[in-house]
Amino acid sequence: MAVGELFNPRSIALVGATDKSGWSISTLTNLRTHGFRGPVHLVNPRGGVVHGEQAHRSLSDIPGQVDLAYVMVPTTAVLPVLREGAKLGIRHYVILTAGFGETGPEGAALEAEIVDFARENDLTVLGPNGNGFINAAADVTPYGLPIPSPLLRGSVGVVLQSGALASSVLGFAQARNVGISLLTSMGNESLVTVTDVIDYLVDDPATKAIALFLESVRDPAAFSRAARRALLAGKPIVALKIGRSRLASRTAQAHTGALVGDDNVIDAAFRQLGVVRVRSLEDLIITAGLLAEVGPLPGPRIGVVTPSGGASEIIADRAEDEGLELPAFAPETVARLREIVPAFGTVQNPLDVTGYVLIDRTLLGRALEAVTADPGVDAVMLLSDLPRVAPPDPAPVYAMFSASAKRIAEAPMPVVVVSNVLTDVTEFGRDVQREAGFPYVAGGIEHGMHAVGAAVRWSRAYRAAVEAADGAVPAKAVASAPAAEAGTGVWAEHRAAALLSSAGLPVVPGELVYDEESAVAAAVGFGYPVVLKVAADGLGHKSDVGGVRLGLSDARDVERAYREVVAAAAAVPGAGRVGALVQPQRGGGVELLVGVVRDPAWGLTLAVGLGGIWVEALRDTALRVLPVDAAEVRRALDELRGTALLRGARGTEPADLDAVAEVVARVAAFAESLGDDLESLEINPLLVRGSHVEALDALITWRDRDGR
Amino acid sequence: MAVGELFNPRSIALVGATDKSGWSISTLTNLRTHGFRGPVHLVNPRGGVVHGEQAHRSLSDIPGQVDLAYVMVPTTAVLPVLREGAKLGIRHYVILTAGFGETGPEGAALEAEIVDFARENDLTVLGPNGNGFINAAADVTPYGLPIPSPLLRGSVGVVLQSGALASSVLGFAQARNVGISLLTSMGNESLVTVTDVIDYLVDDPATKAIALFLESVRDPAAFSRAARRALLAGKPIVALKIGRSRLASRTAQAHTGALVGDDNVIDAAFRQLGVVRVRSLEDLIITAGLLAEVGPLPGPRIGVVTPSGGASEIIADRAEDEGLELPAFAPETVARLREIVPAFGTVQNPLDVTGYVLIDRTLLGRALEAVTADPGVDAVMLLSDLPRVAPPDPAPVYAMFSASAKRIAEAPMPVVVVSNVLTDVTEFGRDVQREAGFPYVAGGIEHGMHAVGAAVRWSRAYRAAVEAADGAVPAKAVASAPAAEAGTGVWAEHRAAALLSSAGLPVVPGELVYDEESAVAAAVGFGYPVVLKVAADGLGHKSDVGGVRLGLSDARDVERAYREVVAAAAAVPGAGRVGALVQPQRGGGVELLVGVVRDPAWGLTLAVGLGGIWVEALRDTALRVLPVDAAEVRRALDELRGTALLRGARGTEPADLDAVAEVVARVAAFAESLGDDLESLEINPLLVRGSHVEALDALITWRDRDGR
Repeated sequence: MAVGELFNPRSIALVGATDKSGWSISTLTNLRTHGFRGPVHLVNPRGGVVHGEQAHRSLSDIPGQVDLAYVMVPTTAVLPVLREGAKLGIRHYVILTAGFGETGPEGAALEAEIVDFARENDLTVLGPNGNGFINAAADVTPYGLPIPSPLLRGSVGVVLQSGALASSVLGFAQARNVGISLLTSMGNESLVTVTDVIDYLVDDPATKAIALFLESVRDPAAFSRAARRALLAGKPIVALKIGRSRLASRTAQAHTGALVGDDNVIDAAFRQLGVVRVRSLEDLIITAGLLAEVGPLPGPRIGVVTPSGGASEIIADRAEDEGLELPAFAPETVARLREIVPAFGTVQNPLDVTGYVLIDRTLLGRALEAVTADPGVDAVMLLSDLPRVAPPDPAPVYAMFSASAKRIAEAPMPVVVVSNVLTDVTEFGRDVQREAGFPYVAGGIEHGMHAVGAAVRWSRAYRAAVEAADGAVPAKAVASAPAAEAGTGVWAEHRAAALLSSAGLPVVPGELVYDEESAVAAAVGFGYPVVLKVAADGLGHKSDVGGVRLGLSDARDVERAYREVVAAAAAVPGAGRVGALVQPQRGGGVELLVGVVRDPAWGLTLAVGLGGIWVEALRDTALRVLPVDAAEVRRALDELRGTALLRGARGTEPADLDAVAEVVARVAAFAESLGDDLESLEINPLLVRGSHVEALDALITWRDRDGR
Repeated sequence: MAVGELFNPRSIALVGATDKSGWSISTLTNLRTHGFRGPVHLVNPRGGVVHGEQAHRSLSDIPGQVDLAYVMVPTTAVLPVLREGAKLGIRHYVILTAGFGETGPEGAALEAEIVDFARENDLTVLGPNGNGFINAAADVTPYGLPIPSPLLRGSVGVVLQSGALASSVLGFAQARNVGISLLTSMGNESLVTVTDVIDYLVDDPATKAIALFLESVRDPAAFSRAARRALLAGKPIVALKIGRSRLASRTAQAHTGALVGDDNVIDAAFRQLGVVRVRSLEDLIITAGLLAEVGPLPGPRIGVVTPSGGASEIIADRAEDEGLELPAFAPETVARLREIVPAFGTVQNPLDVTGYVLIDRTLLGRALEAVTADPGVDAVMLLSDLPRVAPPDPAPVYAMFSASAKRIAEAPMPVVVVSNVLTDVTEFGRDVQREAGFPYVAGGIEHGMHAVGAAVRWSRAYRAAVEAADGAVPAKAVASAPAAEAGTGVWAEHRAAALLSSAGLPVVPGELVYDEESAVAAAVGFGYPVVLKVAADGLGHKSDVGGVRLGLSDARDVERAYREVVAAAAAVPGAGRVGALVQPQRGGGVELLVGVVRDPAWGLTLAVGLGGIWVEALRDTALRVLPVDAAEVRRALDELRGTALLRGARGTEPADLDAVAEVVARVAAFAESLGDDLESLEINPLLVRGSHVEALDALITWRDRDGR
């Protein structure tokens, strides 16, 4: 839904305006004091004077055109207002009124009526149950809560699924001197969605970064499209998505009635989309502010310049947390810095220019110049606080910050500025920043390092996306699998293995047998030792029914194993025709699990991790929403803690991780080729010995066609 | 070293006072403007007027007694000042002057002279290379940097090993309205140490919590003693200890010349001592501020009251991170809250009383009263922001916060207040807090939840320490081991096993043999299958020399194995007399590693984790500094990620964790009994099957007596 006109009306009617409502007072005050240049009409069915102005009895009474109606009437009166407005040609609405879907079935019915009417009449509606928006870039502020002063205009677009947090977010952005372009309080998202607003912000020239507070991602496909557009446009999205804990997920459901998806899948999807996920409101604003200022960073190698040893030590700790590299300076940089830093200081990265800055005010700037010339550094982080209180003569302060600003602007690489601790940028600090043209200061080492780390990660995703779009580095093609017929129920190993084999995937050979003699013949064919597994549809975990026998080394072993597993399986109700699968026994190597499962929200999702009992014991798996190519799978493998085993910890053969990634990507592509009928496909274990990769067992579950 | 008189002088001399030094100006300004009631004498060898006052040419020229000399003279002039002062009976010194041990061997020699002189003459010296201290509780502020205004007096003692961070810490504490009792900038700690200051703060009635910035713990034994005193006194210590990353450890060494210990050991030691470790300056002050205010919390079950759904969802996420429980409210609480919260709200924990608070100002308070009466809750967290800007009529604001403060003070359980985001407490906010008696507000959900989590963890450690000290719950006695004779070099399995066995520890039986026939006889005695391992002192990892044979099932196997391993070992230089150890083969179960190693700083340290290749692959080990009892070992086992395997993941027998803990505690006690000659003792694997616990292999390394 296009929302450009919604956010840029030239005239506004406040419907349900009354002196008794704080929302009404705030909305009018906001429009009058924050620069809205068009007419604002008040509507109250009783007419009379409201907020000191003559009110109209209805929308119809307003002379001239109304572009946006801001609706604060009682719940049951909302639809009549829309009806009247539609007749008058009013196309855009903010509905502040609550009492709809969030309250129960009755409210949901009312909300559905509004949605139907709006769709039929092509109306754009933000809300209901939302406070409206603040289009700071265009001075349009139909917003129902007080806006903390001053409203700072800038380049961060903010989209919130929680109205109550807006005041905290605005207050904190102001404290950080982060200006906003647009802030929207989404409410119930009956019509205008978060995705619609993201699409608008991607095209909005005033917006350089987008900050989201999300309770749920209601339409993952649409969200993914919008997030990809933002990434390609170079506009970073930073998101605080709640529901990490089971507890929060319960809370969010109660609060908005929205489904909170499985959090690990969200994590994976966000990473793939280049969406930076944060866990606090502070990180949301500080990170978005930094990303709006610096744009893409060329790489993770950061040179750090500080006036304090203690701070540089905290920075070193935090850099490791955030995956940032603080490389040693090049010899020429070291030589240059030795001329600059006092003899009792130590020249290293992070650099502490020493407390001598208190005596020589040029020290930090000269050190910065030397470090920004280092060939082994991608970007520089400067530790610097803004002044808090104006001294009697502020001129030298302005001069010092102007000189710094010039040096930063002229540096041959990006310079990000971080302060020591997270305290407010004071009014004097804001003045100095504005007058001196001093760049954004990320608030405090703790949150600042997080922001720098996020900037590096986002920049990597951005470059990858641009290169892929340019065709410069095309995503490696995954061998396309032949379209396979869909099945029903659960396919145990023999059928699943045959299907995988038919698609050219490496599967341990096996022979399905239905009597003891055939079992022995198969074993002789493969050579001892062999493995024998029960084969019957409708059996899930074979080991639970005692249906697996390992290390069978002669005919007698095989015969006995056959009898036992078949007898055990036959005792399970609904097992179907029971036989056994004979396979050569494999040994050594590392066992992986590769699973593709259908997430109710995000669709087919790949999980890779260490296999066998370690899956459940260690929960060490990496997730990716499909599609993926081998390079993406390789990155997923690199995330595993158990990766040390794959790389060859003592006693194991190092795995060819590219070969593993290739096979896993083909498994994923094959799962996709099975279409909507696939519920899950699991290979456990996928045996890896060096470059030899082979599925030893598989299970496919088909969706229940009766709408599961 | 007692420092009470150092921090409470009645008269001060500033030695080296000069108009040209910022330090000199700051120190005098601080003393004059922050209430020091005694005389301040300026000393400058040239005499004349300094800072507008008549200066003395030397300490000897000062009439009357000097309690403290604050020394800012050039490096080589420091010792002469001390000599003169000592003669005059001046016992206490702050040395701001730098150029000592931190600059190299020459400076270190000068520093050593000062230390020697001070020791001989019983002088108390803070520094050198430190900015002094701020005793806010007593209005004594001989401190060399500007103190950001206003200096807030309160109950947090701050001890910093980095002087440059003091201004950030002071500024941030002020922004959070956290008052300090004493702040010290330690400098080189030549004489007065961090531990001395902690000891002072434990006894200081003005101090309720202690905040540390540490680059290194120079004397772990002394630190441990001081930390235990603090814990028993109910004064929480919060520490930002840098050096978590290898990079920071390099930086700190360069910066102070101090040894940064192994970080994982520090983590373990701090946890055992009840020292709360934080990673940011923000958490340092916010957490110390909270702990100073609330004291011990009765338990981890937190009831949360908020005016916002979005915030309560963030709180739920963060609670899980911090190990806090947010239990469902009791039925009677739910019933009470249903009467209070608007019908469209949801009654649950965390509670969102809804945006209706904007209309009914009593809503939050009434909900708080209901939740603090819940029998299933240990403490309540209230989300509330302080006002930022005074309205034209501030009286209602004061009244509202007074009412809140009264309700909180009268609540039957602790109530902690947390704000939405981390912005400064403004001057108006401070006024309201003071006038209304409103409690401490932890800054923002992110850091506030961390502080609440820290408070719960500290409270648990505090209760355990008090109970142990009271003898109410005596630490479980560990079976004392017979004193064993010390050895030299490396004791491979057979000797190590014999030593462990002699101490009554469970070790798999084994027979040491020196020919093939004896090997077979031993195997027959145990019953097949058996394991055969090379036995020769001076061999480390047997598997590296091919010295282990598993699953030997008949005499021929045993004979061949004996020949092979002995031949392989004999080829290793210095292997000594070579034989073999025959043991019954054990199977199944979970393999643990139990190691006791001597940390250079903290002494014998226990590591437990999953054994075998998983040790290196997963680095999943828990550490404890000795001594430990079985209960502490049990907690260490519970920290392991691999604990799921011990508890019986699919296919493994659940381990009796108490039995495991008992054996491990006995191993630790035995290691301690071996005395100073022990370098390390490692059991890998310790096999666990149900309640059966048995060491299968062990290695003891003795310290080199030539001073290693």
